[in-house]
Amino acid sequence: MSQQRIERDSMGELEVPASALYGAQTQRAVNNFPVSGEAMPAAFIHAIARIKLAAARVNRDLGLLDAERAAAIVTAAEAVIAGDHDGQFPVDVFQTGSGTSSNMNVNEVIATLASHGDLQVSPNDHVNMGQSSNDVVPTALHLSAALEVTRELRPALVHLHETIDVRAAGLDGVVKTGRTHLMDAMPLRMSQELGGWSSQVGQAIERFDSAMVRLCRLAQGGTAVGTGINAHPEFAERMARDLSEQTGLALSPNDSFFASLGAQDAAVELSGQLRGFACVIMKIANDLRWMNSGPLAGLGEIELEALQPGSSIMPGKVNPVIPESAAQAAAQVIGLDTAVTVAGQSGNFQLNVMLPLVAHNLLTAITLMRNTAWLLADRAIATFQVREEHLSGPLSRNPILVTALNSVIGYDAAAAIAKKAYQAGRPIIEVAEEETDLSREELERLLDPAALTRGGIPE
Amino acid sequence: MSQQRIERDSMGELEVPASALYGAQTQRAVNNFPVSGEAMPAAFIHAIARIKLAAARVNRDLGLLDAERAAAIVTAAEAVIAGDHDGQFPVDVFQTGSGTSSNMNVNEVIATLASHGDLQVSPNDHVNMGQSSNDVVPTALHLSAALEVTRELRPALVHLHETIDVRAAGLDGVVKTGRTHLMDAMPLRMSQELGGWSSQVGQAIERFDSAMVRLCRLAQGGTAVGTGINAHPEFAERMARDLSEQTGLALSPNDSFFASLGAQDAAVELSGQLRGFACVIMKIANDLRWMNSGPLAGLGEIELEALQPGSSIMPGKVNPVIPESAAQAAAQVIGLDTAVTVAGQSGNFQLNVMLPLVAHNLLTAITLMRNTAWLLADRAIATFQVREEHLSGPLSRNPILVTALNSVIGYDAAAAIAKKAYQAGRPIIEVAEEETDLSREELERLLDPAALTRGGIPE
Amino acid sequence: MSQQRIERDSMGELEVPASALYGAQTQRAVNNFPVSGEAMPAAFIHAIARIKLAAARVNRDLGLLDAERAAAIVTAAEAVIAGDHDGQFPVDVFQTGSGTSSNMNVNEVIATLASHGDLQVSPNDHVNMGQSSNDVVPTALHLSAALEVTRELRPALVHLHETIDVRAAGLDGVVKTGRTHLMDAMPLRMSQELGGWSSQVGQAIERFDSAMVRLCRLAQGGTAVGTGINAHPEFAERMARDLSEQTGLALSPNDSFFASLGAQDAAVELSGQLRGFACVIMKIANDLRWMNSGPLAGLGEIELEALQPGSSIMPGKVNPVIPESAAQAAAQVIGLDTAVTVAGQSGNFQLNVMLPLVAHNLLTAITLMRNTAWLLADRAIATFQVREEHLSGPLSRNPILVTALNSVIGYDAAAAIAKKAYQAGRPIIEVAEEETDLSREELERLLDPAALTRGGIPE
Amino acid sequence: MSQQRIERDSMGELEVPASALYGAQTQRAVNNFPVSGEAMPAAFIHAIARIKLAAARVNRDLGLLDAERAAAIVTAAEAVIAGDHDGQFPVDVFQTGSGTSSNMNVNEVIATLASHGDLQVSPNDHVNMGQSSNDVVPTALHLSAALEVTRELRPALVHLHETIDVRAAGLDGVVKTGRTHLMDAMPLRMSQELGGWSSQVGQAIERFDSAMVRLCRLAQGGTAVGTGINAHPEFAERMARDLSEQTGLALSPNDSFFASLGAQDAAVELSGQLRGFACVIMKIANDLRWMNSGPLAGLGEIELEALQPGSSIMPGKVNPVIPESAAQAAAQVIGLDTAVTVAGQSGNFQLNVMLPLVAHNLLTAITLMRNTAWLLADRAIATFQVREEHLSGPLSRNPILVTALNSVIGYDAAAAIAKKAYQAGRPIIEVAEEETDLSREELERLLDPAALTRGGIPE
Repeated sequence: MSQQRIERDSMGELEVPASALYGAQTQRAVNNFPVSGEAMPAAFIHAIARIKLAAARVNRDLGLLDAERAAAIVTAAEAVIAGDHDGQFPVDVFQTGSGTSSNMNVNEVIATLASHGDLQVSPNDHVNMGQSSNDVVPTALHLSAALEVTRELRPALVHLHETIDVRAAGLDGVVKTGRTHLMDAMPLRMSQELGGWSSQVGQAIERFDSAMVRLCRLAQGGTAVGTGINAHPEFAERMARDLSEQTGLALSPNDSFFASLGAQDAAVELSGQLRGFACVIMKIANDLRWMNSGPLAGLGEIELEALQPGSSIMPGKVNPVIPESAAQAAAQVIGLDTAVTVAGQSGNFQLNVMLPLVAHNLLTAITLMRNTAWLLADRAIATFQVREEHLSGPLSRNPILVTALNSVIGYDAAAAIAKKAYQAGRPIIEVAEEETDLSREELERLLDPAALTRGGIPE
Repeated sequence: MSQQRIERDSMGELEVPASALYGAQTQRAVNNFPVSGEAMPAAFIHAIARIKLAAARVNRDLGLLDAERAAAIVTAAEAVIAGDHDGQFPVDVFQTGSGTSSNMNVNEVIATLASHGDLQVSPNDHVNMGQSSNDVVPTALHLSAALEVTRELRPALVHLHETIDVRAAGLDGVVKTGRTHLMDAMPLRMSQELGGWSSQVGQAIERFDSAMVRLCRLAQGGTAVGTGINAHPEFAERMARDLSEQTGLALSPNDSFFASLGAQDAAVELSGQLRGFACVIMKIANDLRWMNSGPLAGLGEIELEALQPGSSIMPGKVNPVIPESAAQAAAQVIGLDTAVTVAGQSGNFQLNVMLPLVAHNLLTAITLMRNTAWLLADRAIATFQVREEHLSGPLSRNPILVTALNSVIGYDAAAAIAKKAYQAGRPIIEVAEEETDLSREELERLLDPAALTRGGIPE
Repeated sequence: MSQQRIERDSMGELEVPASALYGAQTQRAVNNFPVSGEAMPAAFIHAIARIKLAAARVNRDLGLLDAERAAAIVTAAEAVIAGDHDGQFPVDVFQTGSGTSSNMNVNEVIATLASHGDLQVSPNDHVNMGQSSNDVVPTALHLSAALEVTRELRPALVHLHETIDVRAAGLDGVVKTGRTHLMDAMPLRMSQELGGWSSQVGQAIERFDSAMVRLCRLAQGGTAVGTGINAHPEFAERMARDLSEQTGLALSPNDSFFASLGAQDAAVELSGQLRGFACVIMKIANDLRWMNSGPLAGLGEIELEALQPGSSIMPGKVNPVIPESAAQAAAQVIGLDTAVTVAGQSGNFQLNVMLPLVAHNLLTAITLMRNTAWLLADRAIATFQVREEHLSGPLSRNPILVTALNSVIGYDAAAAIAKKAYQAGRPIIEVAEEETDLSREELERLLDPAALTRGGIPE
Repeated sequence: MSQQRIERDSMGELEVPASALYGAQTQRAVNNFPVSGEAMPAAFIHAIARIKLAAARVNRDLGLLDAERAAAIVTAAEAVIAGDHDGQFPVDVFQTGSGTSSNMNVNEVIATLASHGDLQVSPNDHVNMGQSSNDVVPTALHLSAALEVTRELRPALVHLHETIDVRAAGLDGVVKTGRTHLMDAMPLRMSQELGGWSSQVGQAIERFDSAMVRLCRLAQGGTAVGTGINAHPEFAERMARDLSEQTGLALSPNDSFFASLGAQDAAVELSGQLRGFACVIMKIANDLRWMNSGPLAGLGEIELEALQPGSSIMPGKVNPVIPESAAQAAAQVIGLDTAVTVAGQSGNFQLNVMLPLVAHNLLTAITLMRNTAWLLADRAIATFQVREEHLSGPLSRNPILVTALNSVIGYDAAAAIAKKAYQAGRPIIEVAEEETDLSREELERLLDPAALTRGGIPE
């Protein structure tokens, strides 16, 4: 058994591991919530520490906190932000709904680190000065999500976007049969197909940027119920400024702290955009999986890089494992989003009490989508080979090419030709030659698959 | 039995009601899809008709369609847009995934209306000229949703927003006990509480405005697979311009028609914002329900207008029926959004084939949220009475007011006072007088609930 | 304008359409809830009428209601159950969360129908005798869902199950390349593939039967809050007996009326099984869609019956419209289930107040799945043609057949052969002949696709 | 840097940590899937090891595997099942959709452990003999879920059920005002209220038992695509028997291995029951939170045990942290279920490729609900105090008690009395005495709250 020491808080004494930097309230939470075994994400803890760092400076500047304690808190918070004490935050995700236990955990660790010699730093009176868990936790939720989106998710999406564009540029000469309803349709170039994915990713980036606007509005300054009781009137503005300087984000106080505490609308919005991006990932992953299907009895359009043996029983089998991983991550993000929605609709009066869950799910979803974007870009899209011989086969025999004759002979006559060609299994051009006044030469020009990918009215 | 006539299309002949304006393809769809008994929303049909109207003008201007047919199509489309023929669009929501049946339904009805005397207007060659269901249907989906958001949903939200603000202004003098974790917390004014709702609604409006940016990017011009085959090169731009003029929306062609056809990301985004607003509605509705609870054994803070007898067995019972209706509408919007997500992640290659479902669910959700916003504003928020006598009772006895002494005596000493006051059931001010050096006068000033709602550090 | 008459209830007077069978409370609800424009499903209204019918008989037998009124109520209720007055129940789905308005609507219509000459029948005192909306509505919800499952959904599933089995039996000789991860895998017979669907449908039926156990436990007898106040002590048992006789269902009072009123767990369970069946439908629909894909650039394994022209622009195109309709219905059921879950987790104290929503969504989902099962069976599974020539092509060249040699030469050696065959594009049997000691004859026996579908260890 | 060794598989060589028990395929997966950082749950890995153990015995008994290797595999598998090597299974949840990497991870670890001296045990040929990942992984998914439900979840539910019943028995004398629509309704006893919860939990247990029936049907024996290729004809039955003996579960082969591999219907069903139980938890947690609300400005019916200081800013605040933790866990289970549904509807042909996600989410949800059931039972339900003085206050003044007079004076007269009493703020009994012929004595008897909780018709 590890050694214990005795700690106390406003409820009395209890045992804490001797080596722990945290104190009684953290330990109570550890004892109270043996639920998932999963601690809050480090990004969330670091964001709380950023708030403590900013608060120490702001309260010092406002003349509320002495310079010595402020400096000690700043140094301690910097160490936490740097990840030096990540093992000191053991509180379960499924804890008090306000996240007070995580806030107190950070307060206690920083107070311990900051106290030395005669300098006593109190977790509540000094580290938490001018704050309440009720504004710290929603602020940390917004801040950590905004940072992770900006620093982790967005670069991954930009990389995916660029990787698709580079591949598309190289595939501009590859013509293939289009598929609508999974059925042979008019031809397109593979560059166009990938261009669709690229557009999807590009607009997903726009969506995250749009959600950032509201994510950057903070609860900090609302304190206990939104009125700002016990915080200096300038506290909110100064905190937003300090946190902006720390992070480079354009942070500001929300227009209503009552909304910031009682609801979680910006989190629900971000979660919605994450699940929207999950739909993008699902589309790309499934297109890749089907393009790669075969090699004999599938579509066989591409060959994904072989990354691992595909089967424990079928020798030589290679599977599209990266798109499968991606699709599962997308499904999970859709699920995490449902939980955020259930949380988001559950607030009562002055506080939503599902904050740790919301923070956990947002940060988890961001991580899943970031890593998935990198993997999909680098181990699937950048590396697949095109099997051009499989693409060209059905291209010119496709009866649907008759669509190009609509403007010349009308839909109904074109339909009759397509039907005849299909039933007889004959090339569309042959039947068209018989059934129309158009010459072979004209038909070759009108029905050229590559030309048809350029759009416009064939004439 | 009603009389029948014989119609034919490219697949052959079939019977159609003699009075129907539609033709064979619509009838096939009616026969094929006896699923829900629910037709597509009128707003969606009208949006298709707007596309037909625009296309007739654009194709005429491009020299592709003769002026006589164009004029006839325009007149016919205007009648459809005006709602004159709403009974002529019987195709079930659960139809072909491209919505081709609805597009052909509109093509057929307009062709019938436009054909007269010697003028034969073909549903495919003239009404559908330069179009495919694959671009018409996603365009109509975006267009109808954008119009309904702009003309129906947004005004309702603005009204709700203003109604809350007006009520809040009138309630600025009402102080109440705040609730976090449902437990007594620091006091706030009812105007602040409603200010939280107002901020939520205000930012929800921002979110819809943000989604509109991408909703206004249209698929039109992509035709069959996104390449724009069979449409004039200027068709897409001209169509966006005509539709913008028709509607006042700032419409443009999407940057990739392949994305517009193969995915439904803007619809997923809008649906996400709708379900986000549903969370706002749920918060407000539940706050209202609980504020109204009692009258004796509940919170009893307000009394909602009595709208109907509440019980078939308990005489005199009155229930918060409008917030309950609102909460159910919100739950439904959350569900409709899940279906849109399932649809949004299901696209393959050049077409997403859950378009009618997506259109139906978006338009249904918009209607539910619009009507709910009006009802909640006019029959709940505008009309509730405050039961001030119930609010004032617990206000000054609340031990949590001791929070105001934190900056003077520290958190731990304050906690001890709160504990003692609560256990003894004594007023907090009495215990504080005993346990601190503060005078009764100072304490009265420091612990004044109304003053505490102004925030800042009591001193 | 239609003529109006004046009606009154405990809240006062109001205008009602002169021809309406309903009274003041229904009219108040119509005025209060202009939300969706959708009325409650007829099956739900009929179930309430069944309760009224049963209650009249039970109260008469208990000596609480005179025989004349009881007989009049029975006759009136029978007409409602028969659907004679379906237009008289206009209350919106999004109404009071208890469904009181629908209960009172039925009480009022039946009271009007039952009152004649001197006989005055009161909606509350006679039609609603011994009941509260709080037990009637959950009972009607269970009863209508149980009836629809039994009479509508289950027969459709049985039909789908049998249709699959019949098709499977006829396809036992058709061997095809299996697909795992969408990649060529070991062969199977199409009968086996359809056998998988059949098993899925068969076990879905089991699941509905399982949910029926708890669905058949009724709230009736709990009255206002679950205590059974104002109902005769024998009322609950007698009602369950009468309703069982009416319907053939094995109904009984729930073991706790408090659970029946305060929660909706059986509804959540049934909804879960419906969404589980939606997953089955999605699997079958997607398999069909992909099997049908092509005809040239797809898998091309089957050809679904052509039901309608597939495209407004591409002549001759035929699409898998029934599976697409099915997939959309499945997506919708998944969404309706989410709303039921949100409702199911929202109950407080003695009543869940999302009952009309839950009833509507359950009954809608049942209808969607019933009609989808019929359509999928009759217009897709029963009628598709197999394109055997497409299946046989890749069958014997498939390098994965080498799996059959595992037990003879080991996984690693088999993998080497598969790799070589695939890279060289040579038949697997040729390479195996070179690389092993096995004779051509032995290899032909070991690698025979049809034989390999029988399972077991090739030797 | 830790030391590395070179391993090889059918794709070539790569570096593996020198101390790792696993081999090349595991390492490839570690390299390929840096997605979530989360490994598969131990319960899932142990279930795979159980399959390996059983397979070694079955193959030995069938004469396919020599006794020495079989014994070595059994011993190695037992160590894995015992949890001795839990650190050796590092493959990410978001891996190949078949879970092949986890199966091969177990194959490799067991092969390493089993090989000693001259005895070479091959991961594929010996440990995986007669198996494919495609039957092992769905089997392990069913098996681990069935074991966790039986051994972990069910006992927790039984404990919760019993704890509620014990509390209910002790609270039979406590009468309180019922609440429907959150409004004062007829009275009930607290034992009845808790009886509702008890019934909910009891029927949740029934539901899990019902799902177990289909969960105990195994994929094992289907091997690569469901045909059972490479497995002995008796393998499936013998495996089910061995696994049944190992676990005490009543396991059997599924009626179609094609369904077992291609779909995940039993997992979707179990997930649905888990989310149904989450709804039960949400109901109980919210009832507890609201009963505990106050102490002054809330309902104040009970006082939950104080487990930790509730606020970092408000001294003396105590919050209902266990119900809040429970509600968040419930929300998460609802979200995990959505992801399972997305996975469940995504299968194609012979394999569903979201198996690791499904296994992870099911096992996570089981853990969350198990721990939540224990905490809710022991730290909330078993320990709350009733604040009887708060309950009795509104009890007899409640105008709704007039319901008891319905059978004597009719609903309309009763409504008039209730209205008058409420408007004048007078006791209902006084008004009733004035407005009816009933004596004070009769009214005291008829309106006695405690008596009214017994149900029946007051007379």
